[in-house]
Amino acid sequence: MNDSEQAPLISDEGEVGFVDYQDFVSKEPFQFVSGGSIPELTLRYETYGHLSAAKDNAILICHALSGDHHCAGVHGIEERKQGWWNFMVGPGKPIDTTRYFVICSNVLGGCQGSTGPGSINPATGRPYNLDFPKLTVQDMVKAQSLLIDSFGIDRLHAVIGGSMGGMQTLQWAIDFPQRVGRYIALACGARHTAQAIAFNDTGRQAIISDPEWKGGNYDPQEGPAQGLAVARMMAHITYLSDVGMESKFGRKRRSGDQSREHFEVEFEVESYLRYQGASFVTRFDANTYLYLTKALDRFDLHSPESLDVTLQAVTAPGLVVGFTSDWLYPPQGNREVVEALLRLGKDATYAELAMDFGHDSFLLRAPQLYELMHRFLSR
Amino acid sequence: MNDSEQAPLISDEGEVGFVDYQDFVSKEPFQFVSGGSIPELTLRYETYGHLSAAKDNAILICHALSGDHHCAGVHGIEERKQGWWNFMVGPGKPIDTTRYFVICSNVLGGCQGSTGPGSINPATGRPYNLDFPKLTVQDMVKAQSLLIDSFGIDRLHAVIGGSMGGMQTLQWAIDFPQRVGRYIALACGARHTAQAIAFNDTGRQAIISDPEWKGGNYDPQEGPAQGLAVARMMAHITYLSDVGMESKFGRKRRSGDQSREHFEVEFEVESYLRYQGASFVTRFDANTYLYLTKALDRFDLHSPESLDVTLQAVTAPGLVVGFTSDWLYPPQGNREVVEALLRLGKDATYAELAMDFGHDSFLLRAPQLYELMHRFLSR
Repeated sequence: MNDSEQAPLISDEGEVGFVDYQDFVSKEPFQFVSGGSIPELTLRYETYGHLSAAKDNAILICHALSGDHHCAGVHGIEERKQGWWNFMVGPGKPIDTTRYFVICSNVLGGCQGSTGPGSINPATGRPYNLDFPKLTVQDMVKAQSLLIDSFGIDRLHAVIGGSMGGMQTLQWAIDFPQRVGRYIALACGARHTAQAIAFNDTGRQAIISDPEWKGGNYDPQEGPAQGLAVARMMAHITYLSDVGMESKFGRKRRSGDQSREHFEVEFEVESYLRYQGASFVTRFDANTYLYLTKALDRFDLHSPESLDVTLQAVTAPGLVVGFTSDWLYPPQGNREVVEALLRLGKDATYAELAMDFGHDSFLLRAPQLYELMHRFLSR
Repeated sequence: MNDSEQAPLISDEGEVGFVDYQDFVSKEPFQFVSGGSIPELTLRYETYGHLSAAKDNAILICHALSGDHHCAGVHGIEERKQGWWNFMVGPGKPIDTTRYFVICSNVLGGCQGSTGPGSINPATGRPYNLDFPKLTVQDMVKAQSLLIDSFGIDRLHAVIGGSMGGMQTLQWAIDFPQRVGRYIALACGARHTAQAIAFNDTGRQAIISDPEWKGGNYDPQEGPAQGLAVARMMAHITYLSDVGMESKFGRKRRSGDQSREHFEVEFEVESYLRYQGASFVTRFDANTYLYLTKALDRFDLHSPESLDVTLQAVTAPGLVVGFTSDWLYPPQGNREVVEALLRLGKDATYAELAMDFGHDSFLLRAPQLYELMHRFLSR
């Protein structure tokens, strides 16, 4: 058998097409792990494909820090921005919407329609801002479980996510073992390293020290745009890799002209990053950035008990994928989770993909990743 | 012969003791590579040891971005802060002040007494600020050559430096081959990667977007402290390493209490970095930070001709040292310089030290580095 003569099992050519978001609203008070609560809860989400009569073909996709519920398809003729995982989700794609009913929600604490620090507190008629309770990955997952309840789904075929989405995925497998058929956690480990915390805190300081932050009480249409842009520029560097940036930008200059004004854009990489910073502030809320990065920093499967004790709850088979060039969540952190699962006799497997694009590798068109995921989902 | 029974060849126990800085002043106009000029020039410097009658025992030490002329000893009984390379420079130390006359000057463009953007422009009576000419590593080296002239020294026994100091060192070997007896360049390559430029530009954006920057025209006692602190926090992470931060800080919390207020210091690493940011602004000028980081980004021995053409001018023997955990200036960048020198038939050698402390490894107490430097200087 010659691999090169085989037709590919999967492709990324099918399209979800037009899709609209919906809002799940719970009017019950929601309790946070921290002890805080909010009187009601909205999660904005999208779905792709059709839920089977037996309600046994649902896949929950959990997004990363700067992601949202718009994971596949386009919103309409006018608004044709593809979902952030459009390569991965669609008819005939690795997460095949002709077979699976795919749900992707904006996280609790988010700023794209789900309840978060920028939402109006019904008790006061004003945004929560820093009155929003302390947020953890466990809270995000608990809120998603209410959304899954609303569909009458007892057990998900799979939970899948990368980065912060990977942490949610692991938390699902721990907190709701009976509701998770299998899980795929990409580009994430059991906890942040000191370096990852350091980058996040620097980003938070950029926001908090921007006078427009105003102690968190900025007007909804204003806010610490400069600080948030700087935080995003820095974070974006950590999502890429030295090798990836070198091949994409190297030392290419914006123009042949080296006599530009002081500190204006000179190198292509500066132009790219400044654009990333400036565009981020048009779609993201600074307080949400503070809350989500804190939730990431606090996520720690080694605590309060050891990693092995924490993972004892898991029953579903799991696939964990690390990326060789991911220096924000280095592969050994991904591998450590599977090593603990295997020590516990769990059904778990680890794959390490040699890709040059750093932490963001899981978001990229990558046939070797497609194949892994497709096979694991059909197992 | 048993190595462990040998007395160490070198130690770091001798002390320079009290030392005072001096100012070199040139009243001649100074021309920059960019074409700009300033009417006069001051370089603040310190010296340790004694210049021989033949004036053939002088070593120039070039400092890194956030360094200064205070490289060894203490300033007095009251001000006992040791120089930044006190381990390395002193009687009986690797750079032995009983043998060598050591000179260390604050760079042109600096903010510790040498002429820089914060200096008064004699033509206007006001600080240069952004009227200060575009600065390159070549300009720094040319200014230092005037200081060396002032001692009547024709030829330096050695030029030594790490990071930005390493770039100056290489530039000395290229621009003044007849004046350099040997050189040691630590933790630096032939040019910045895209990633290094990206971090620098993010730091510059943090400064420039701070409203207190005021287009560069802040009052000398004021300025963009918040932006500069954020820039420093981020840069400081890049000077360390994942492994080094993990062993030093890990996920240690500031106190056992996890119920601290939102976004206050929670982890030890946050406390450390915030302190680094806050203390930096008390000793460093924001415009100097902009100018020096730009000089680093523009430094490129591959331009305007190839690396081999640029290095053709070098005649002195050279030692280049890379550090395995330096991810800001990765070892392959250091190695590349020596590979080109060897291709050209030059006397050059490369050492790669396995140290876990990232880019800042060259600043640390490290017997294997002492030995290398001591031997190479005595060769």
